[in-house]
Amino acid sequence: MAKLHLVVAGVSLAFAAALGAAAEDDAVLLKRAKEIFKPLPKVVVTSDFPTTAPRVELGRILFFDPRLTIDASMSCSTCHQPALYGTDARPRSIGVQQRPHPRNAPTVLNTALSIIHWRGDRDGLEDQVAKALTSPITSGQPDTKALLERLNRIPGYASLFRTAFPDEPNPMSAENISKAISAFERTLLTPSPFDAYLAGDSGALSPMARAGLEKFINSGCIACHEGVGIGGSIYRKFGLVEDYWRATGSPTIDKGRVEVTKDPEDLYVFRVPSLRNVAKTPPYFHDGSVPTLPEAVRVMARVQLGVTLDDPDARDIVAFLESLTGELPANFATVPALPSGPVISDKP
Amino acid sequence: MAKLHLVVAGVSLAFAAALGAAAEDDAVLLKRAKEIFKPLPKVVVTSDFPTTAPRVELGRILFFDPRLTIDASMSCSTCHQPALYGTDARPRSIGVQQRPHPRNAPTVLNTALSIIHWRGDRDGLEDQVAKALTSPITSGQPDTKALLERLNRIPGYASLFRTAFPDEPNPMSAENISKAISAFERTLLTPSPFDAYLAGDSGALSPMARAGLEKFINSGCIACHEGVGIGGSIYRKFGLVEDYWRATGSPTIDKGRVEVTKDPEDLYVFRVPSLRNVAKTPPYFHDGSVPTLPEAVRVMARVQLGVTLDDPDARDIVAFLESLTGELPANFATVPALPSGPVISDKP
Repeated sequence: MAKLHLVVAGVSLAFAAALGAAAEDDAVLLKRAKEIFKPLPKVVVTSDFPTTAPRVELGRILFFDPRLTIDASMSCSTCHQPALYGTDARPRSIGVQQRPHPRNAPTVLNTALSIIHWRGDRDGLEDQVAKALTSPITSGQPDTKALLERLNRIPGYASLFRTAFPDEPNPMSAENISKAISAFERTLLTPSPFDAYLAGDSGALSPMARAGLEKFINSGCIACHEGVGIGGSIYRKFGLVEDYWRATGSPTIDKGRVEVTKDPEDLYVFRVPSLRNVAKTPPYFHDGSVPTLPEAVRVMARVQLGVTLDDPDARDIVAFLESLTGELPANFATVPALPSGPVISDKP
Repeated sequence: MAKLHLVVAGVSLAFAAALGAAAEDDAVLLKRAKEIFKPLPKVVVTSDFPTTAPRVELGRILFFDPRLTIDASMSCSTCHQPALYGTDARPRSIGVQQRPHPRNAPTVLNTALSIIHWRGDRDGLEDQVAKALTSPITSGQPDTKALLERLNRIPGYASLFRTAFPDEPNPMSAENISKAISAFERTLLTPSPFDAYLAGDSGALSPMARAGLEKFINSGCIACHEGVGIGGSIYRKFGLVEDYWRATGSPTIDKGRVEVTKDPEDLYVFRVPSLRNVAKTPPYFHDGSVPTLPEAVRVMARVQLGVTLDDPDARDIVAFLESLTGELPANFATVPALPSGPVISDKP
């Protein structure tokens, strides 16, 4: 019980209810965690089509190739940078020709396990990629014909598409670009210390991270942030207790998913993001309005749970969230050499 | 002499003078090549200061960090992309906030062995980096104070600078940013099959590449493209025989180095670029006006040497130039995980 008293000194009254859990021993905490969360799978497979190594490699090359966009100025990796854990460190991304993206760029790491986009306006990875290929903000290409003409002028691509889609008479297609990039993205998994913990290695989390895990569970964060992604699987109203834009100083009021579904129940509703690698992907929320993780944790507690966290609580929960950081996948951290070839001209 | 006759069939009259060389046996060709070119060194050192591993790693991190620029939208690696051999595949790069760069982005690979910038308007690597840090096109930062304030807000940088510059009371300085990025760039060396050839392995070049090497030597390309960089060490007028902008369809007439030196002799004078990795870095020339390597070789022969190359000549020379392609350095192809932290705000 000495442990309990040490913890008491540092927590707010609002967390009194959580203190019973703080006394649980490590085995009990691990057992509870296993009931709530799931470790990352080794691979993500889909029933639609087989993911072959050449298809993943083609997707990887396309992901890094700026020549897909209208002025060859941006690739997928411009807003989803490996060096920044698949994000771009901006509140909201800048698209081609300086066109602003309306929301914060979500990471592509572990994205195959999550609802796609903040408002869930895409039917999975292939649909996301397909729409990005001709989005005025993301790509600027007027249509897929222009995009395919561009790729056709880069000699190396024909054989890459043939190898990735060997049974097709016309493998270089917009559909196959989407399939290849999606296949690549499905490989971007980042097992973390927390996965080692869920696999039974209690020491994979520091005592502070374990204290944070208890507080994360007992304070109610797990109502939304659960499962394999520690979030990513459901939608929730942002601002259950108070308006999110007041709490965050958001530059705009975003109505969220209602604009997709037209259902009034979806006003201010967004996907609950996965918290994997969250310590590496500031700024936070759909609008990138909050720059640091401790502040983001406090805002969430306030506007979703009506809880004011004190410093030790926020510190412990942040320590837990840091245990969700994995290594960058090697095929993401290491960029491919792209097929070289002529691209665009700015001759008059 | 059978070899000589085989070659004769495919070359133009203008190359008759080169044919004597074609008959030389491999040993003689290798001996000549060794007199003209130098293999890449294993390391590039400077007498100014020691290059330590932490300094190189700090430079690598800074090179990939978009948060150095005014809107956190571009890093050094945006125009010098690993996936494109340190270039950006555009004729001329787009800078921050859509501001156009006046010339084609040169590769950063092997750049420590070369005159910096097309017009030689920088006194070496450190000077290039220092001026880029507050260039309105490259960075958009108003001054180094604003840049350092930005870096100071990213918690991980303080210790990285301390480790890289351990004896300094105030290591996080603009000067040290320049030193660190320059130290990193000095490691970006790409030994190629041609270096193995120069080291004595005649079989490191294909017969076609060796034929191209002979033609490259005998046609006079080596008047400018020689030494360790196969170019990169001298300035020359672009358009000795005819105007370059007519031959290339350049969108603008660039006066070149005269604008730097004010010496009328420097009208249309540019640095001779290193040809290392040239097959991987289209489009070509200071204005990026020529999209393919065979065309670039023909233009050079015409406007600098008054020679019209036929297809086999161009093909062989291109085969030689392809032997100048090296592997991407591992610390360039693999991006570092950047220190995470808050950056910029777009709150009102």
